[in-house]
Amino acid sequence: MDPSAPAAPQRALSESGDIAATLYVCVTCLAGEDRETVPRAGRRLHDALADAQRRQDELPKFRIVEAECLSNCNRGCSVALTGPGRWSYVYGDLGEASVDDLLAGASRYAATTDGLVPWRERPAIFRRGVIARIPPSPSPV
Amino acid sequence: MDPSAPAAPQRALSESGDIAATLYVCVTCLAGEDRETVPRAGRRLHDALADAQRRQDELPKFRIVEAECLSNCNRGCSVALTGPGRWSYVYGDLGEASVDDLLAGASRYAATTDGLVPWRERPAIFRRGVIARIPPSPSPV
Repeated sequence: MDPSAPAAPQRALSESGDIAATLYVCVTCLAGEDRETVPRAGRRLHDALADAQRRQDELPKFRIVEAECLSNCNRGCSVALTGPGRWSYVYGDLGEASVDDLLAGASRYAATTDGLVPWRERPAIFRRGVIARIPPSPSPV
Repeated sequence: MDPSAPAAPQRALSESGDIAATLYVCVTCLAGEDRETVPRAGRRLHDALADAQRRQDELPKFRIVEAECLSNCNRGCSVALTGPGRWSYVYGDLGEASVDDLLAGASRYAATTDGLVPWRERPAIFRRGVIARIPPSPSPV
C-alpha cells in the first residue's frame, strides 16, 4: 500500500464489510510521563498502530479508534478490544514496542465470534497485561 | 413486593420492556479468601444484590447477571455495568457492604442513554473503585 495515500485504509475498511471488532486506544494516556510531553504516550501508541496497520498487505479485520481515557491510568498505555456479541477486554502496560503484538492479538480477536481467543494463542502482552474483561451485552428484553 | 414470590422479579423484568443495562457480578471471585470458602465472596455479593433488588418496590431498570471472572482478580469483588450503545465500566474493591450503593449507582447508569453518569452523581464506590471503562461498540461498517 502506498503510504502517500492516507485515504486508502478507510476505503479498505468500508469495502471489506467485515469489520466486527474495534481496538480502542487511549490517546490521552501519559503513562507516567510529564504532562507537558507532546505527543502523549497514548497518542504515540495510537499513531504507531495506525501506521503499522496501513502498512499491512491484508485488509484489516478491526478498526483502530481513538478513545479519551479508559480509566486505567495507573497501568497505561491502555487499549480495549470490543465488538458486538463479544467479550470486551482492556489491556494495559503497553507502549510503542507492543505494536506488532497488538496487531496480531487484535486480528486473532477479530477472527472469533465471541471474543474468546484461546489462552495460548494470545500474545504475552495480553496474557500479562489484562486489566479486566466484560461479557457481551445480552439482547434487550 | 411479596418476598415469598420469587418469580415476580423475572416477570417484572420481562414485562417492563425497558431493561437496557446489565450489571454483571463475578461469582467466581475469591476476594483474597481461601479457595475452599463456600459460597465464594463473589457469589455472596451476587446473591445479596439479587435479594436486595427483589425487595425494592420499583421495577428494576437493569438486570443482575452472573459472570465467571472479569479478570480483575487483584481487586475483587468485581462488577461490570454495560448496555447497548453505552460506555461499559468495571468496578472493583466491592463486597456485601456495597450492595445499596451498587444498586443506586447501577440505577443511575441505567437511566442514561450513553452510560455516562456525572461524576458527582456516582457513588463513592464507583469513583474510587473504577478499574477500566470501554467505549460503546460502533455500528458495524
